[in-house]
Amino acid sequence: MSARIVALSGGVGGAKLASGLASVLEDDELAVIANTGDDFDHLGLQICPDIDTLMYTLAGRNNPETGWGRRDETWSFMHTLKELKPDSWFSLGDHDLAVHVWRTWQLNQGRTLSQVTGELARAMKVATAVIPMSDDPVRTTLDTNEGVLEFQDYFVRQKCQPTVQEISFTGADQATPAPAFASLLTDNSVDAFVVCPSNPYLSVNPILSLPGVSEASRRHSAPVIVVSPIVGGNSLKGPTAKIMGEMNIPCDLDAIADHYGNLADILVIDSTDAEQQEKIATNGIEVAVANIVMGDETDRRTLAEFVLGLVESAAV
Amino acid sequence: MSARIVALSGGVGGAKLASGLASVLEDDELAVIANTGDDFDHLGLQICPDIDTLMYTLAGRNNPETGWGRRDETWSFMHTLKELKPDSWFSLGDHDLAVHVWRTWQLNQGRTLSQVTGELARAMKVATAVIPMSDDPVRTTLDTNEGVLEFQDYFVRQKCQPTVQEISFTGADQATPAPAFASLLTDNSVDAFVVCPSNPYLSVNPILSLPGVSEASRRHSAPVIVVSPIVGGNSLKGPTAKIMGEMNIPCDLDAIADHYGNLADILVIDSTDAEQQEKIATNGIEVAVANIVMGDETDRRTLAEFVLGLVESAAV
Repeated sequence: MSARIVALSGGVGGAKLASGLASVLEDDELAVIANTGDDFDHLGLQICPDIDTLMYTLAGRNNPETGWGRRDETWSFMHTLKELKPDSWFSLGDHDLAVHVWRTWQLNQGRTLSQVTGELARAMKVATAVIPMSDDPVRTTLDTNEGVLEFQDYFVRQKCQPTVQEISFTGADQATPAPAFASLLTDNSVDAFVVCPSNPYLSVNPILSLPGVSEASRRHSAPVIVVSPIVGGNSLKGPTAKIMGEMNIPCDLDAIADHYGNLADILVIDSTDAEQQEKIATNGIEVAVANIVMGDETDRRTLAEFVLGLVESAAV
Repeated sequence: MSARIVALSGGVGGAKLASGLASVLEDDELAVIANTGDDFDHLGLQICPDIDTLMYTLAGRNNPETGWGRRDETWSFMHTLKELKPDSWFSLGDHDLAVHVWRTWQLNQGRTLSQVTGELARAMKVATAVIPMSDDPVRTTLDTNEGVLEFQDYFVRQKCQPTVQEISFTGADQATPAPAFASLLTDNSVDAFVVCPSNPYLSVNPILSLPGVSEASRRHSAPVIVVSPIVGGNSLKGPTAKIMGEMNIPCDLDAIADHYGNLADILVIDSTDAEQQEKIATNGIEVAVANIVMGDETDRRTLAEFVLGLVESAAV
């Protein structure tokens, strides 16, 4: 497989930019690498929240109100499951469940997550390549004031309430990037790597923690363009700001520039933060200004076009 | 566990009499042994059609129109599954699916089918003990003019169309009766074994094929009462008559008396067949006459009371 633009993404926030990029690129020009650190085994089913959010968003089937799951979903399964397991805290919609059951069945027959994800995307008529970061299990775990928690336990069951002290990616050092991802990392036809405005610590770091990924992105001649997950000193979505506070990292663009300093060629910040452009650039990173808060599809498309404009300029 | 009445049952037809018996007996007086020869692995889920039909019927949640599945069911899962697997031929309702997912999850953690079935029944507030015939896998397979077919392939996918030459119960010779079933087979407080009007070849034979079951039932002092699955020369439900024809067995009460001859003490035949009572009795079996076509709950209750009356008489 080949692609001009390789986007690294977590769930909701990243999926917005990914869908914007998909809307302005040809089908074979975009590949999205999905974080799988949030994946978990639930009731014996293999759940891949970020892959599914990306697929559902790219298929136009995501639920824009909840940010997870599918639109026009029904909940009969959960209704009956709660009779059997009253403490069920992870909601699985009836349509959504077909994906989990089918994927688990396929994986248990020895197929890889890449193969299964590719087939799911085809069945949903998603033309963009959605590639799991790895076919090997990598599990994000959080060391918190309530002990070590698996990601979904922290994120869904405990609603991000515990104080985070450290984040680790169990299995990452033994994992390899998925074959299609590995191949893109050294593919000269790639024009840019785009880090979507996903949580740097929970969604992007798992991808970058895979052996060789950071190095290969840096070594590749294409620029790495990071869209900031921080706007006006707060996170665009989710617990990024809360976690940064707990880990004693100031929630500002300097911290983002610092975090991605070794990797990024260009950092895209929001126009409300425009006055910081020059200061951030002293970190040795090129800083571009755009409207990065994506309220609707036009915003996604506009931001995608802006990012592609940066790619064109960088190529000149 | 203990019980006065132990009913052997397949799905729909047997479940009607089981629910009749449950309605006239105290909670702890009835145990139903469910055929598990129809069980199969589907999409990685462990499906137990007869156990579920029995539980749903005893819980008043069965779908009386289809004969399988639950009432007030929804079908979102199947809708999406068919995008992923267009040839899906086994329908799984959304509520029903919670049972399959939960059971599979529990079994994969090493619990037995007996344990899992007991918990499912408790969660559905089914007071009657529902006991799988065995915790070991036994699979009904049919040698047909279209080759060897697994039961659900024959029954659901091929709608019983192939011609049956031979029926076997793979694994039966290695299986043991479930612990609670084994214990009831030698329990002196049991007053009768009732063979429900289920398919003798597909639903009852798997139970009787387990090592020691036929012998123990015969050896037990309690009578074995068989309710005929044949009325007026035809089967009450399902492919019994068709299969008997294909296996060159006349579809009549003589064949049923012959089939259960070594096991049964009393055969209950329908009042429309009353004129055959004396002739059938020459097979060396006691023959009782009742209305065995159960159209509604009153019919079920009336037949259950009749069967219990036979038990009382036999005990005198």
